[in-house]
Amino acid sequence: MKTGLTFDTVALDDENSALVIIDQTKLPNEEVILHLQTQQEIHEAIYLLQVRGAPAIGVAAAYGVYLAAKEILEKESGNGTDDYDAFLKAFTEASAYLNSARPTAVNLSWALRRMEQVVRSHADRPVPEIVALLKQEAVAIQEEDIAICRSIGEYGLTLIKPGDGILTHCNAGQLATSRYGTATAPMYLGHEKGYDLHVYADETRPLLQGARLTAYELSKAGIDVTLICDNMASTVMKQGKIQAVFVGCDRVAMNGDAANKIGTSGVAILAKHYGIPFYVCAPSSTIDEKITDGSMIPIEERNGEEISTMWYEKKMTADGVKTYNPAFDVTDHELISAIITENGIARAPYTESLKRMLEGTKGH
Amino acid sequence: MKTGLTFDTVALDDENSALVIIDQTKLPNEEVILHLQTQQEIHEAIYLLQVRGAPAIGVAAAYGVYLAAKEILEKESGNGTDDYDAFLKAFTEASAYLNSARPTAVNLSWALRRMEQVVRSHADRPVPEIVALLKQEAVAIQEEDIAICRSIGEYGLTLIKPGDGILTHCNAGQLATSRYGTATAPMYLGHEKGYDLHVYADETRPLLQGARLTAYELSKAGIDVTLICDNMASTVMKQGKIQAVFVGCDRVAMNGDAANKIGTSGVAILAKHYGIPFYVCAPSSTIDEKITDGSMIPIEERNGEEISTMWYEKKMTADGVKTYNPAFDVTDHELISAIITENGIARAPYTESLKRMLEGTKGH
Repeated sequence: MKTGLTFDTVALDDENSALVIIDQTKLPNEEVILHLQTQQEIHEAIYLLQVRGAPAIGVAAAYGVYLAAKEILEKESGNGTDDYDAFLKAFTEASAYLNSARPTAVNLSWALRRMEQVVRSHADRPVPEIVALLKQEAVAIQEEDIAICRSIGEYGLTLIKPGDGILTHCNAGQLATSRYGTATAPMYLGHEKGYDLHVYADETRPLLQGARLTAYELSKAGIDVTLICDNMASTVMKQGKIQAVFVGCDRVAMNGDAANKIGTSGVAILAKHYGIPFYVCAPSSTIDEKITDGSMIPIEERNGEEISTMWYEKKMTADGVKTYNPAFDVTDHELISAIITENGIARAPYTESLKRMLEGTKGH
Repeated sequence: MKTGLTFDTVALDDENSALVIIDQTKLPNEEVILHLQTQQEIHEAIYLLQVRGAPAIGVAAAYGVYLAAKEILEKESGNGTDDYDAFLKAFTEASAYLNSARPTAVNLSWALRRMEQVVRSHADRPVPEIVALLKQEAVAIQEEDIAICRSIGEYGLTLIKPGDGILTHCNAGQLATSRYGTATAPMYLGHEKGYDLHVYADETRPLLQGARLTAYELSKAGIDVTLICDNMASTVMKQGKIQAVFVGCDRVAMNGDAANKIGTSGVAILAKHYGIPFYVCAPSSTIDEKITDGSMIPIEERNGEEISTMWYEKKMTADGVKTYNPAFDVTDHELISAIITENGIARAPYTESLKRMLEGTKGH
């Protein structure tokens, strides 16, 4: 399936020990490819949203911590040692450092835990072998991401019909994953089948991921997309232009509460008001078994200058004006029509259906 | 009451035959005072939102058409004639030209009709006298605007208590009127009484009136104001930070449906969801007796570049991305807790209560 982009969201350049990403803060005006070699560069790229989107962050972290392991091994080899304990200590430190880059997306810690599990479950193996296994695991995480997104797209496609209008918020697209996206996967698959979908993309303030990324990648793929400001969603819904809302998510609690980009809960409330189904597209890796409801999900608060200054030609507020800049919100499970995972479509009661999804039970 | 601003939103400089406004497109970075002398300048100032806000537009149009009348008279005098019919024809042309600047705010046509009424009801008087009466009428419209806003503030104040959090959208402030604002009037009056209110201002994309104007004027007045992106309203409501929503409006239908800045209807749906009262502040001049419900209100659609480019350092969309840019939306009367006018507080059923407001009946 062609998605119109000429670069990968996240890739490993093992020969040069680099994580290769497209700098998403420069899109759509410039296509800048970054080759990140130090852990600090990778941490910063995640914090600064040069790579963003829960699944892509997971893949970036997996490759990132693999590169850390490789570096540790090289240093160790210099010492002529092959000390598992020293390796494990250095590895968990590197992992904790990357994990601190962003708090809300569970995929970051999920991918890092999965990588750490490789190290811990092969304590009896020589460190160079463990490092090779870490590479395999990171590649597997990326390949699974692609397969997961495709599967979400196939399930999502059963919920729409040709000619439908679809609203999406933020970017849960190709640029948030390794391929297809999550919320956009039904759009790409539908487009391939000639569905003639009409997508409305919320611009998604303050960082404009909808304007800069979603509208960009969908239009590159030849999908009919119209950019609106976040506060226009009510109007296009009222006008009957929207038959379904698809959004991604960063973490799902076991009761179905879903954390996603700030503004998602508002879109869900509007959709309920207008009787439009609201679908959350969630790889099962975003379902957090340790979290019973959304109030337990930590919400990242970011710098107020993202609102007042960042993208503007001039400062957009008078001096001394306070800002509040939560990066995510939690959508109550009662507002969610269904949660689409790679293992099927979960519906209320989510406490039961999400467990089935985690068990890999196929179920509609 | 001090509101912190050192300039008038709209004023007449009769000696120099100029309409004097603060250029609101330059705020908050620059305080540029414009002296508009030609009808084309005045039309453009309204179209470009250099002066905006339904009440302020009404006052600007009244002064604007008075200046047109003065110019017509001067030309006529040059011809040595005092031809009422020629004057009326030129006057109605000037009025129609100003009226075409923006379609949604009813105050524009309301003020112009009121001015035209002066001309028509004094057909027996010499043209110079009519022109003098037009000045009187325009001054009266502005003085009434100030009294109306103060009265709305007093009624609004009865609906809140000290320490309340208040959310507002767009700018229905001092800068949208001659003084006090409509939605902000209870805030200014409450502040004067030491109410310690906490105002949350939606930034209001695409033109950022909340960021540039509301946060600016409230912070100048020493009121505690926090700027949020439009899509954060759901979060602050959920957190219990908001006890009431106050918004202005551009036109009210007789069933209570209210047109206001794009995004208002979404805020109203969120407020209903969270059980927060939603108040529309409406001078009775914004109640349109000829409109039975909101579907009859014309909604201005503006240039898509306001979304994709206008305020940004760089273009924020890829080439070829479509935009949709409605400037207003209509909030269903069922979402409105009360409509606050200078004559009292109207509640459902609005078909009856709004009639009482128009009759000037004092009623809560």
